[in-house]
Amino acid sequence: MSGNTFGTLFCVTSFGESHGPAIGCVVDGCPPGLSLTAADIQAFLDRRKPGTSRHVTQRREPDAVEILSGVFEDRTTGAPIALLIRNQDQRSHDYRDIADTFRPGHADYAWWQKYGVRDYRGGGRASARETAVRVAAGAIARKWLAERFGVVIRGCVTQIGEVSVPFESWDETGRNPFFVPNASLSARLEAYLDELRRDGDSIGARLGVVASGVPVGWGEPVFGRLDADIAGAMMGINAVKGVEIGAGFASVSQRGSAHGDELTRAGFLTNNAGGVVGGVSTGQDIVVSLAVKPASSVRIARRSIDRAGEAVTVSTGGRHDPCVGIRAVPVAEAMLALVLIDHALRHRAQCGDVSTPTPHIAGLAPEGRQDVPSPGRA
Amino acid sequence: MSGNTFGTLFCVTSFGESHGPAIGCVVDGCPPGLSLTAADIQAFLDRRKPGTSRHVTQRREPDAVEILSGVFEDRTTGAPIALLIRNQDQRSHDYRDIADTFRPGHADYAWWQKYGVRDYRGGGRASARETAVRVAAGAIARKWLAERFGVVIRGCVTQIGEVSVPFESWDETGRNPFFVPNASLSARLEAYLDELRRDGDSIGARLGVVASGVPVGWGEPVFGRLDADIAGAMMGINAVKGVEIGAGFASVSQRGSAHGDELTRAGFLTNNAGGVVGGVSTGQDIVVSLAVKPASSVRIARRSIDRAGEAVTVSTGGRHDPCVGIRAVPVAEAMLALVLIDHALRHRAQCGDVSTPTPHIAGLAPEGRQDVPSPGRA
Amino acid sequence: MSGNTFGTLFCVTSFGESHGPAIGCVVDGCPPGLSLTAADIQAFLDRRKPGTSRHVTQRREPDAVEILSGVFEDRTTGAPIALLIRNQDQRSHDYRDIADTFRPGHADYAWWQKYGVRDYRGGGRASARETAVRVAAGAIARKWLAERFGVVIRGCVTQIGEVSVPFESWDETGRNPFFVPNASLSARLEAYLDELRRDGDSIGARLGVVASGVPVGWGEPVFGRLDADIAGAMMGINAVKGVEIGAGFASVSQRGSAHGDELTRAGFLTNNAGGVVGGVSTGQDIVVSLAVKPASSVRIARRSIDRAGEAVTVSTGGRHDPCVGIRAVPVAEAMLALVLIDHALRHRAQCGDVSTPTPHIAGLAPEGRQDVPSPGRA
Amino acid sequence: MSGNTFGTLFCVTSFGESHGPAIGCVVDGCPPGLSLTAADIQAFLDRRKPGTSRHVTQRREPDAVEILSGVFEDRTTGAPIALLIRNQDQRSHDYRDIADTFRPGHADYAWWQKYGVRDYRGGGRASARETAVRVAAGAIARKWLAERFGVVIRGCVTQIGEVSVPFESWDETGRNPFFVPNASLSARLEAYLDELRRDGDSIGARLGVVASGVPVGWGEPVFGRLDADIAGAMMGINAVKGVEIGAGFASVSQRGSAHGDELTRAGFLTNNAGGVVGGVSTGQDIVVSLAVKPASSVRIARRSIDRAGEAVTVSTGGRHDPCVGIRAVPVAEAMLALVLIDHALRHRAQCGDVSTPTPHIAGLAPEGRQDVPSPGRA
Repeated sequence: MSGNTFGTLFCVTSFGESHGPAIGCVVDGCPPGLSLTAADIQAFLDRRKPGTSRHVTQRREPDAVEILSGVFEDRTTGAPIALLIRNQDQRSHDYRDIADTFRPGHADYAWWQKYGVRDYRGGGRASARETAVRVAAGAIARKWLAERFGVVIRGCVTQIGEVSVPFESWDETGRNPFFVPNASLSARLEAYLDELRRDGDSIGARLGVVASGVPVGWGEPVFGRLDADIAGAMMGINAVKGVEIGAGFASVSQRGSAHGDELTRAGFLTNNAGGVVGGVSTGQDIVVSLAVKPASSVRIARRSIDRAGEAVTVSTGGRHDPCVGIRAVPVAEAMLALVLIDHALRHRAQCGDVSTPTPHIAGLAPEGRQDVPSPGRA
Repeated sequence: MSGNTFGTLFCVTSFGESHGPAIGCVVDGCPPGLSLTAADIQAFLDRRKPGTSRHVTQRREPDAVEILSGVFEDRTTGAPIALLIRNQDQRSHDYRDIADTFRPGHADYAWWQKYGVRDYRGGGRASARETAVRVAAGAIARKWLAERFGVVIRGCVTQIGEVSVPFESWDETGRNPFFVPNASLSARLEAYLDELRRDGDSIGARLGVVASGVPVGWGEPVFGRLDADIAGAMMGINAVKGVEIGAGFASVSQRGSAHGDELTRAGFLTNNAGGVVGGVSTGQDIVVSLAVKPASSVRIARRSIDRAGEAVTVSTGGRHDPCVGIRAVPVAEAMLALVLIDHALRHRAQCGDVSTPTPHIAGLAPEGRQDVPSPGRA
Repeated sequence: MSGNTFGTLFCVTSFGESHGPAIGCVVDGCPPGLSLTAADIQAFLDRRKPGTSRHVTQRREPDAVEILSGVFEDRTTGAPIALLIRNQDQRSHDYRDIADTFRPGHADYAWWQKYGVRDYRGGGRASARETAVRVAAGAIARKWLAERFGVVIRGCVTQIGEVSVPFESWDETGRNPFFVPNASLSARLEAYLDELRRDGDSIGARLGVVASGVPVGWGEPVFGRLDADIAGAMMGINAVKGVEIGAGFASVSQRGSAHGDELTRAGFLTNNAGGVVGGVSTGQDIVVSLAVKPASSVRIARRSIDRAGEAVTVSTGGRHDPCVGIRAVPVAEAMLALVLIDHALRHRAQCGDVSTPTPHIAGLAPEGRQDVPSPGRA
Repeated sequence: MSGNTFGTLFCVTSFGESHGPAIGCVVDGCPPGLSLTAADIQAFLDRRKPGTSRHVTQRREPDAVEILSGVFEDRTTGAPIALLIRNQDQRSHDYRDIADTFRPGHADYAWWQKYGVRDYRGGGRASARETAVRVAAGAIARKWLAERFGVVIRGCVTQIGEVSVPFESWDETGRNPFFVPNASLSARLEAYLDELRRDGDSIGARLGVVASGVPVGWGEPVFGRLDADIAGAMMGINAVKGVEIGAGFASVSQRGSAHGDELTRAGFLTNNAGGVVGGVSTGQDIVVSLAVKPASSVRIARRSIDRAGEAVTVSTGGRHDPCVGIRAVPVAEAMLALVLIDHALRHRAQCGDVSTPTPHIAGLAPEGRQDVPSPGRA
């Protein structure tokens, strides 16, 4: 195991390089009997795939997924599910000139030092192209979570650079190329990103991801806390530099009398916890916020060194996302789904016999919420 | 495994409740031959232990550690090291009246739903008392990291409530009861916390933790990234709600031409990455920031329900920390140490034969840094 | 993790040396709500403890177990259960003269090469004394298996040296100091072992272990097969050199038309499979046989070398078992219990929603068997 | 994780069904810098592939392997290595009539009960076809073990049914279709198997596998013992019912004064231990013996039941191996290689700094042995 398997019981083993023959994964531990076809997975891949607007990389990849195993007559069998996505539109020659230089902000230097060799073509294994397989695996997870527990997972971009996006509705996120939950800001963001592209620069973003309908009781104290695993999963997405659950950094200046969510027969009155206390889900929405750094591939010349240690300047051409945070939305949703299904299985393994007499609390899962709160710190 | 073991190769299995007979852990995977006595561990426990000033809980626990195994003639043998800390100053009767109510902000409700039973005395397993064993295990980790690689790990409080604390010097953090790196703010913080205590309220905090001297190359892409594991470890500390690496949430509004750390023969020019790119350490300082929520135990009455679902008000007496962030400093240091030693071992397992000709870069580990940058976002 | 944790979901982390302050373990993943007291565990420890007859080691250890955590008001809480057994009757001076020599058949040479240091007192960590904690952990496992599924686990000695013991009844195994299932052979075995003791020699043994009432469906193909995990667990007991499931080595000369167990509405007609096919339990008895080598500590002088590489002769005094296979019976039972509970939890994690319409087959678990077949090859 | 990943640090995740589109695996944790091409792997697959003689199944599968990732310019990069083998010669219609019946000795009944669904075509996931991917992964492991440590792994058939095969030479095993180490028995075995085939029956086999050149010190007491992991790996191969290390079951009737291997400056005098004591390698040959049951697919009619619980008779046509033990030889070698590389990495993770002054002992690895002992019990 050198870090390419995610999960304890619902395990995703990812493989593949940006410019190799293929990327893919093996999903082991999926409950048997789940209805599943390639189309179920493809729908989610299509949301993440490159080339869908001028604001993301122009690499043309159909990202067509093939199910190699673990599904028989459109049902999962409990055997490992292998997913394969062939790479199509490699332009490896774009990368020939960076074989010997270390691009600032990229994994080049650190990985070369670690492994002694590196597949430099398009970032190789370090490329965000790898995240396609997370989306594919996540599609299986969220299908099961939805069918078995009614869990719904949604993400959006809540800030791009200086432009903060007030939450309006989840419906809107699917109607614009930025995954923002607010129609009124599209024009402004288009102009903003067009300018960045002209400058040959990139920009960071803030994302919000919310899981609704998660039952109370998932998570394993003390080291397998649900929030700990979510934080690890999110920080493990390429370019993420910060993660918050619930009130997040705003809790630094909160008082305890304000932060602790009061509980009434009508439900929790607030959700500063973000749906997790003591590492265990409360039944409220799980609310996650994350910071995605600006893409490191910029046309603007920057200082670096080469393998000989000589000073060079690096200007990165090729086809890149000016704001990698945008396409990170389906990836973050997928990672949250993977954490949740894993804990669903872990929970029933240990606590499958527990039947706690739940006091009637309105609005909590599994009964489901009517109102879905806005993501981010709100 | 239900979440009480941390690490892949250097593993800490924690046990114990706040008001049970003892807390402790088993450390498995420690390299043999390390010089180790109980005193080496006690020094770190004493930094975290309760009752050291009026600003922390007044529970009196000597937190005296006993080494039960794995050490022979003051050297580790490679066998598991069991550490035992007997509880001394339980006042379980303080908790009798909360046996049937769910305190807001606490794990009470969620854990009861999960397990069907709960040891309510002092929070039982959910108590921050458990973090003592992390500090004990971390003491072993940091001793090895220091002796083998020269790694130094330091933490401090950089904000309490609205009071932000400018970084002055690491030396100062050991001289005040708040772990703040700045002498001039002590009086103000004393007054601030005295007032909180009078109000029966609590407050959040921001912490910074820095590891210096970490060699380039630790971390396992793509799911075992060093930053992912750090984020998981930090969010897994009681009361933590947010984690940042390097620039963290500030990177949302950064441009790529500013964020990516330029590299020269004289070293990296900035450290927005916080010492990790592509999930692998760069040799720069690893810089982590975290948000700790206000303690949930407050004397101010708050609304909740009891096990029968009836509305109650809860006012938490007992002996509590008004700002749990303070005593979280040694815990955060310990968790960072545990992540780092685990990756040190994982790295040499896979890459033990790699010898990359390092270009001479000034200031990078393993050569070590002279200057230690301030923690937090700076 | 350096090999001191057993199990995937029901995890036992063992610690302690033969002549250190204590041995013990942490059991993580136990389902909550199980009724449990120290007495429940002590009963099994007493079966294994030394000094109960002249045919086993005369070391006097009460092996009194203390529960340190994870149990509240005599019920498991789902938190880790730490068990502690203080060592009492160390005679470390017995071992001073072997500090620098490598006893033939013992771990001395290999462990010293591996770790560079070794706690030579009584074999340190390599001592079979460590198996007491397996018995303690196994006691929890078998209690849950019995209460939840009606699983019964029994073991016996089926051969000592040249003396093969025909199976008569399980009841008999508790009435003689050899754990043999046959009253008529006690006198012969007493004489046999008395002679061995006079000779200062030791002898091997064959054991049989049977689990009845195991439901169909436990085990995880392809690498987590139930039989694979049983084989690993058994071979991991000190001194075990061979493991068989069902027909075992007898299947080498069987024809397929004889080996494959025919299935009728009245149940399986034979049990060559030993209760496992394709890595999954069939509902029949799980039948395991193992070979335990003779104890390596013999008074007869044998050739070896010392740390300087010089030739020496070694004659091992101290207090030893002439036939370690005898006290291995409760250990083997415990290990089988640990494998089974782990797979019970793993099974319901993945397949908790499966309800297969079982054809009515007489005699299969979970309905339970009336007749319990004899262990071993029959 | 539901049992399809093998190993702790060098991890193989296997996928695929006998009659699905493909089988394959992901190898994670391979040290970087190893020279590797598809041809290196193909050589081992060709030894196992079906259709090479009339004594094995006549299914025609080229078993051509494609490397999808983790290798760049014919060197491993440290990234996961995905291997893909497309299925070619499925005759699924052969299996239509067994969709509703449970073949005696097969996984049919137990897997259906476990998962509620099953891919019955050719045994689906339970088919020994899956072992091809173990051979492929093992090829990478043994290449590294050979280049880095000089470890050589060899296996052979030592008994088929009643025909025991005295060891003559390793060279011979490659020259006959039975992998037996003795030229003089080929004619007899051909006649024996021809007769079995005419009878429509099958037969068991005993295999021996030996690893030479394994350095002293691999293995992790107490639960990760090298012999425990070997036993688990071997029992996890389809159809294996027994495993021995070294003297194995013969040790039951040995005395301690005979069993414990004496050590002199000229090396160990015997190898009853089979190269492992206290769970750690001694530097001697690692000697493993295993029992493979007769194939369960026989033309002879046998009693069983169908999904409705009705009595049926089953006669299995299709293309099958009369003695599955034969083609298990490369599989057993591969599994031993996978255990060894995993422990090589685990050992250097924890003990990478240990340098024990080895007394000069002739004939022990890493110096290497001239004489290779015969496998099995000898």
